[in-house]
Amino acid sequence: MRQAGRYLPEYRRLRRRLSFLELCRTPEAAAEATLQPVVRLGVDAAILFADILLPVQAMGLRLAYDEGKGPRVWPPVRDAKAVARLRRVEPEDDLRFVLETTRLVRRRLEGKVPLIGFAGAPFTLASYMVEGGPSKDLAFTKAMMHSEPALWRRLMTRLAEVTASYLRAQVKAGAQAVQLFDSWAGTLSKEEYMRFVRPTSARVLAAVSRLGVPVIHFGTGTTPFLKEFAGAGGDVVSVDWRLPLDEAWARLGRGKAIQGNLDPAHLLMTRQALKSRVWDILKRAAGRPGHIFNLGHGMLPQTPPDNVRAVVDMVHDWSAR
Amino acid sequence: MRQAGRYLPEYRRLRRRLSFLELCRTPEAAAEATLQPVVRLGVDAAILFADILLPVQAMGLRLAYDEGKGPRVWPPVRDAKAVARLRRVEPEDDLRFVLETTRLVRRRLEGKVPLIGFAGAPFTLASYMVEGGPSKDLAFTKAMMHSEPALWRRLMTRLAEVTASYLRAQVKAGAQAVQLFDSWAGTLSKEEYMRFVRPTSARVLAAVSRLGVPVIHFGTGTTPFLKEFAGAGGDVVSVDWRLPLDEAWARLGRGKAIQGNLDPAHLLMTRQALKSRVWDILKRAAGRPGHIFNLGHGMLPQTPPDNVRAVVDMVHDWSAR
Repeated sequence: MRQAGRYLPEYRRLRRRLSFLELCRTPEAAAEATLQPVVRLGVDAAILFADILLPVQAMGLRLAYDEGKGPRVWPPVRDAKAVARLRRVEPEDDLRFVLETTRLVRRRLEGKVPLIGFAGAPFTLASYMVEGGPSKDLAFTKAMMHSEPALWRRLMTRLAEVTASYLRAQVKAGAQAVQLFDSWAGTLSKEEYMRFVRPTSARVLAAVSRLGVPVIHFGTGTTPFLKEFAGAGGDVVSVDWRLPLDEAWARLGRGKAIQGNLDPAHLLMTRQALKSRVWDILKRAAGRPGHIFNLGHGMLPQTPPDNVRAVVDMVHDWSAR
Repeated sequence: MRQAGRYLPEYRRLRRRLSFLELCRTPEAAAEATLQPVVRLGVDAAILFADILLPVQAMGLRLAYDEGKGPRVWPPVRDAKAVARLRRVEPEDDLRFVLETTRLVRRRLEGKVPLIGFAGAPFTLASYMVEGGPSKDLAFTKAMMHSEPALWRRLMTRLAEVTASYLRAQVKAGAQAVQLFDSWAGTLSKEEYMRFVRPTSARVLAAVSRLGVPVIHFGTGTTPFLKEFAGAGGDVVSVDWRLPLDEAWARLGRGKAIQGNLDPAHLLMTRQALKSRVWDILKRAAGRPGHIFNLGHGMLPQTPPDNVRAVVDMVHDWSAR
């Protein structure tokens, strides 16, 4: 997940002069936000500072972040006319600021750690567009899937094109790995995922895999269909904290790399308790190649940065042995 | 889940003159809310109109429902002093209004359908008390589990006593089945569920099982540890929509009855699409005894009541054949 954020005092300082969207759209500042956690935490990779909904804005929808309430997208896309109205996206023009950030970060990193780019997966983007914002139940989205499958496919196809070309542009601008975020996949049944989502994700992942960089496929709550989720493609699959890492690996087979699986809430515990969580994950990974130590979901705003640094150090200590 | 609610115009009429908490605390009105869906939908059981947080209020915490924002509980219970301050609860005194509602409903039902009572499970109640309201990450709750396990156990033990005596009182007042709601269990890892939650749930379920009525154990998002969740006890286990019913049953074995598993969002689809969802569930249950057709979670406020009635009729048609 994004490493920069409100839990870092230096990020909050940046946000004092720029709104979240202004920060995303200002390459100089976004590059600084990208580099802050690399300096502070000593992580092994930088993660591009951007937002998964920027391409949705480029498609012609309005986008706003109301403080503490999550994103708002409007007008909601719920019929054929709304889907037809969506603009084609040329990443080099419409999302140039992200690519400019990518180039800036690559230069400033001077090869010290690699840079990971990312995009939202078509289903997760579609859910924001159809619901108009975050939603626990995704009622409108599921209604469109089941009641108007042809329209749903049209929307998903448009999003697959945008997502694939956006990730291609990021790699061209210097991203050395990319991540596809399907954050809401876990709200679906296995059957819905297979019928209405996976074919499109698979197309994007296949297109991106041809770019020659590692591809990470992120989801949460996907335990009920982890094998099917991983089967969509990519080199690495995310596993949240609900399933122990060794069990996840047993289900997926050894050909797949795994990213995970610390519960972000555990970063708020005492150092002693946190340490035992980290050791548990590392023991289950058993030093096997193909494990990227990571959180199962995003950093919580109240996370103490020193705890994150301590986790990075523990992982490095273990890896060195 | 609770059948009454904002999706019913007759419920909204009741709410015009009473706040949600006033409605819960006024037996005459709560009995009416309990009976409304029985009349309108033709369901096979009545579900007591109440709220899982009423015992938390009886334990001395303040409770408020801000329109559209979910419950608020304060002061939050985060240290030994706060746990020690919790009041002992005598259901016959402190929650008499719920028991009075139970007795009223039983009389008015005249034996036509059975009445199901319910309570929140200790973990779900604890999470509201520790967080101060609903929370996606349960950061304070998980911190207490891992960092102060003895304090956590003390809180859980207090809640187990309250929950067991509250359900006992409901059965004495006339409830013919009871349901234990562990709505947030799915936010935990399997290991956390086993160490910090299941022992207490098991105690409550065992105590309640001695009352001679069927006991339903409800959770959502529990697919990663469904067998362990079901192993806590009770006669029936809830399965949300994420796992097909036949797969769930294969995992659990035939000795356990199952409740589920329509996605509440599917009640918003066209009648044709909804019909195919319902048939799919019924086919997977294959007419086996031990299946209670139900939603995987609560009714959404925008649900058309006629769609719910149509589902009840479809299930009855199938069952009659």
